[in-house]
Amino acid sequence: MNAADFVQPDRLWADLMTLAEITDPGRPHTRRSFSDRFLDGRRWLEQRFTEAGLTCHLDDAGNLIGRRTGSAAGLGTVMSGSHSDTVPDGGRFDGILGVLCALEAARALRDAGLVLRHDLEIVDFLAEEPSDFGLSCIGSRGMAGALNTEQRALVAPWGETLAQAIMRMGGRPDQLDTPRRTDLRAFLEVHIEQGIVLEQDRLPIGAVTAIAGVTRIEILFGGRADHAGTTPMDRRQDAAVAAASVITFVSRRAGELAQSGQGHVTATCGIVEISPNASNVVPRSARIVVDIRVSERAVVEAFLEELEAACHTAASDAHVRLERFTRLSDTKPVACDAGLVRMIGQAADRLGLKHRLMVSGAGHDAAFVARLCPAAMVFVPCRDGRSHDPEEWCTPQDAANGARVLTQALQDVDRDF
Amino acid sequence: MNAADFVQPDRLWADLMTLAEITDPGRPHTRRSFSDRFLDGRRWLEQRFTEAGLTCHLDDAGNLIGRRTGSAAGLGTVMSGSHSDTVPDGGRFDGILGVLCALEAARALRDAGLVLRHDLEIVDFLAEEPSDFGLSCIGSRGMAGALNTEQRALVAPWGETLAQAIMRMGGRPDQLDTPRRTDLRAFLEVHIEQGIVLEQDRLPIGAVTAIAGVTRIEILFGGRADHAGTTPMDRRQDAAVAAASVITFVSRRAGELAQSGQGHVTATCGIVEISPNASNVVPRSARIVVDIRVSERAVVEAFLEELEAACHTAASDAHVRLERFTRLSDTKPVACDAGLVRMIGQAADRLGLKHRLMVSGAGHDAAFVARLCPAAMVFVPCRDGRSHDPEEWCTPQDAANGARVLTQALQDVDRDF
Repeated sequence: MNAADFVQPDRLWADLMTLAEITDPGRPHTRRSFSDRFLDGRRWLEQRFTEAGLTCHLDDAGNLIGRRTGSAAGLGTVMSGSHSDTVPDGGRFDGILGVLCALEAARALRDAGLVLRHDLEIVDFLAEEPSDFGLSCIGSRGMAGALNTEQRALVAPWGETLAQAIMRMGGRPDQLDTPRRTDLRAFLEVHIEQGIVLEQDRLPIGAVTAIAGVTRIEILFGGRADHAGTTPMDRRQDAAVAAASVITFVSRRAGELAQSGQGHVTATCGIVEISPNASNVVPRSARIVVDIRVSERAVVEAFLEELEAACHTAASDAHVRLERFTRLSDTKPVACDAGLVRMIGQAADRLGLKHRLMVSGAGHDAAFVARLCPAAMVFVPCRDGRSHDPEEWCTPQDAANGARVLTQALQDVDRDF
Repeated sequence: MNAADFVQPDRLWADLMTLAEITDPGRPHTRRSFSDRFLDGRRWLEQRFTEAGLTCHLDDAGNLIGRRTGSAAGLGTVMSGSHSDTVPDGGRFDGILGVLCALEAARALRDAGLVLRHDLEIVDFLAEEPSDFGLSCIGSRGMAGALNTEQRALVAPWGETLAQAIMRMGGRPDQLDTPRRTDLRAFLEVHIEQGIVLEQDRLPIGAVTAIAGVTRIEILFGGRADHAGTTPMDRRQDAAVAAASVITFVSRRAGELAQSGQGHVTATCGIVEISPNASNVVPRSARIVVDIRVSERAVVEAFLEELEAACHTAASDAHVRLERFTRLSDTKPVACDAGLVRMIGQAADRLGLKHRLMVSGAGHDAAFVARLCPAAMVFVPCRDGRSHDPEEWCTPQDAANGARVLTQALQDVDRDF
């Protein structure tokens, strides 16, 4: 008897489509954390969790948890889930798939008549997406004890502090700077890839070996806003020329590093702004934000040194000033638990689903839960890599594959951990 | 007796400062063409012209002209002037200096007791700056017969056609597609350089040999807005990378051409816009506007071929599409009359003012008047190259030098032409 066979693709799909309908009026798909719509979604989720025989509660960080007690007391808890909040005008799957696959796995286990030895928890983390407090992964940070006093004092545009908002969600935010859980033994999160690799490689499953760290650097060059027609080429201080040199460097060097066998490396100049941005004026300033993601910390440190040197050279060549080279944010890569990654691969194999190992270039709740216990992720393909967009799409079959691999892996983890 | 010695720097400066005060309330220095404020300025100018013994009228194109009849009938007209309209939040000197230096020269000639053989006309051209009709140099175009029916049908945001507006200014716009003057023998225009060359070279006078043509090219690259973290470097279609390559090419190649002895060459990527311009998204599109100014037409034609080839290469390298390569505008360079340029140099020499030959990278009324008669320009330094800005500045001495060289040159032209 394999509980993965009890996954019902139609049931999972119906849940995905129903939750997608709980959205701000006329605005697919918008269920912002801390909003009334988000609470509507949670009420529906709680009902579904309860129908699946799970006992619901909200933890200190405002995470919704559905729990089923295991057969062997004192073994601890195996957890799976993700988040149900969305970005504005977001998709139907990002986060949501992970919550509903966990729910479907819990139902499949029940329908198969299986009770795990460990306690099983299904979780909907609070506010994984960048929230109106300027912070993401609030619920998983809080569970991991990584939501400090300063962050809890952040204020939303409507004047509420994050601590107040967590309380309004049903949490108790006082002690979120110490870990809230010591009983967790393993965490598994199913998620759409939010990339194009699985789709292009025609693979149904990705076993995530690491969640890349994200380092964002703001670069500002300052030149002179001279007349484009009257200023000779050799007397210019053109900030856009310096910026162009850096964009070229970032693309070229990150491409080289990505081929160097040092794990996942991407670097992107996604923000490029020049001022005054008029056709007849030599650009006075140029601002770039470079987004760097690596799975090995040493790579980003070396890359940043090269990048800063490239900025100085670019400034010197264009006779402009490097006015800013600032680390806007910097999170470290998180390695997934090797044992869990292997189990995901084995689960996929057993179900006849091809898989590949891959690094997640996007951030996830799993990165914070990994501070508490072994954690890993299961990726499924999404169409065209689209995410954070109403066009985000995942086929019913790919969604069900995620639930099946998760159900299989939960049984294996329950046996071996 | 040298009439240039009768230039009164204080009188000229007082006029400059007085006209500068005729500006939209609380907004230095704004006297937009076709506005009530512009007409206030014209009424003041007409009074000053009249006080200088000039007879005023408005020509068909709505240009304000002050005229003094010459001593020898039938020799034709020598003209000098510029424009009194400003950009929004503009300066005190751009255009205005040329009108008031012409007025000061007329007064100096009168004060010296000199009557030129030619008729002398002082002109304030209508709407040299980009107007609310989306067109510049309206008065000089009209005088040269270069204001066609289509242009006269242009509509301002307030619903008036350009033809109606010219009538409201006192013009008769019906026949502005044929030249309005056959009597012009020479045209001289004093102007601030709007650049940094004279100031940096510590030279009081520039004799302008040509007015550069301006060619503007819009380039649009189309890529894919993939996730910056999850899209491997070798699977990207990053439009900003293509744009960066083009910005680098434009700067490098224009720098080489400017050193190649083929006259004035500048090229500037003054507009750079990427979309969606988010740090975590690979740029989907990148738009550049390249502003190219040359004094020799063949140079721009060759440059454009190289630029288009560079765009195709950049698109291919970055796996994006070159979606647009469009000539937004294209005016041909205008050579100044070599005899007039020589006379400007000789006038400066006689007055003990060092000068250099130079090309105007900015457009001017003189470029249109050059279709009617020999034309040339006298440049004076302006602080820091600033123009189209309330900070635009020219010293009283530099302003007076412009008037003195003009007064001297008018006498020489009157003798030789």
